[in-house]
Amino acid sequence: MKILVVGANGQIGKQLVTFIQEQDHLHARAMIRNKEQASFFEELGAETVVVDLEGDIDSIAKAAEGVDAIVFTAGSGPHTGKDKTIMVDLDGAIKTVEAAKLAGIKRFIMISSFDTRRQAILDAPPSFAPYVAAKYYADEWLRKTELDYTIIHPGALVNEKGTGKIKAGFDLEIGEVAREDVARVIIATLQNDSTIGKEFQVIGGTESIKEVIQSV
Amino acid sequence: MKILVVGANGQIGKQLVTFIQEQDHLHARAMIRNKEQASFFEELGAETVVVDLEGDIDSIAKAAEGVDAIVFTAGSGPHTGKDKTIMVDLDGAIKTVEAAKLAGIKRFIMISSFDTRRQAILDAPPSFAPYVAAKYYADEWLRKTELDYTIIHPGALVNEKGTGKIKAGFDLEIGEVAREDVARVIIATLQNDSTIGKEFQVIGGTESIKEVIQSV
Repeated sequence: MKILVVGANGQIGKQLVTFIQEQDHLHARAMIRNKEQASFFEELGAETVVVDLEGDIDSIAKAAEGVDAIVFTAGSGPHTGKDKTIMVDLDGAIKTVEAAKLAGIKRFIMISSFDTRRQAILDAPPSFAPYVAAKYYADEWLRKTELDYTIIHPGALVNEKGTGKIKAGFDLEIGEVAREDVARVIIATLQNDSTIGKEFQVIGGTESIKEVIQSV
Repeated sequence: MKILVVGANGQIGKQLVTFIQEQDHLHARAMIRNKEQASFFEELGAETVVVDLEGDIDSIAKAAEGVDAIVFTAGSGPHTGKDKTIMVDLDGAIKTVEAAKLAGIKRFIMISSFDTRRQAILDAPPSFAPYVAAKYYADEWLRKTELDYTIIHPGALVNEKGTGKIKAGFDLEIGEVAREDVARVIIATLQNDSTIGKEFQVIGGTESIKEVIQSV
């Protein structure tokens, strides 16, 4: 199973490609912006492809040729300029969805934000609301496709080492979750087709990732 | 015929409400952000309603109750902060579309940007691309509804007095157009149901607005 990781050079992305390459039956193709970012992934034995998410859909579709699944984990983050919020978090995500359709890749895993419902846009502080709105529209666009999607809504991301234990569901109180555990959740999601057409929030917890993801 | 003008306090909006009130069979309801903006419209005999476009859909829907058409001409413009590009040009427009559906108002006229096709996002200078992307998604959202929409794509807006003469079509070379003439084009569009389901670019020209709009 080959997986295109869009946003591979991000913090979740690097962890995800590492985990993918550790599994015999999984292989990563890391989509990166600059050739200089390639060595990290080449040392893991992963393929790399250099594509600008602010470019055209065709070049993303070309990068996706022949993979079995696409994971979108690129993100300008909530603290970059709002121009990047539009160009990466909104338009980059939606172009990747369109590229999946164009390349005929059905399986699509979107790493979203903790709460992207309309009410969350209204409730967010003014500086954060545009990011939530961008993620709302990206998720909404994906839901309206025929793709085999899963939307993962992680809590507050932290860099502490993961525990392999989480809580997943909907309408959770926001809590922290290790990026390492989010990467493990993505792996479990790729391995469980029962997650297709579903979405869930993830925070740190007490249940094993494997068991939680099997029954979301 | 009563028309809700969203973004009434903008430069096109004020001109549009003025023209609407000059016509016996047209009546404007000006949607404004602050009560202090009301006097201009009250002096014209127009209704006013105070609603924050960054608020919820319900309050926009309530403002639209009982009108026959909605004109969206609000705009943060290409030179405001990109947070407003997301919250007004993208989310404000789409919430107004959703409010129209909620209130059961079928007729919707969107004032868009000159070129909001995907290629225009790629071709735009980096500082302008987020604005084009926001307008792309707003237009795209409207096209996918069952509303009786018209999307107007004006050229470079100028404050010179209008001539009443324009050129309309698609794949035009960009040119200037007076805001006053855009307001006249909106009036003509409201009066011609043959414009339903259509969209067109508008620049200054040599043909009478009435005749051009009857045959777009």
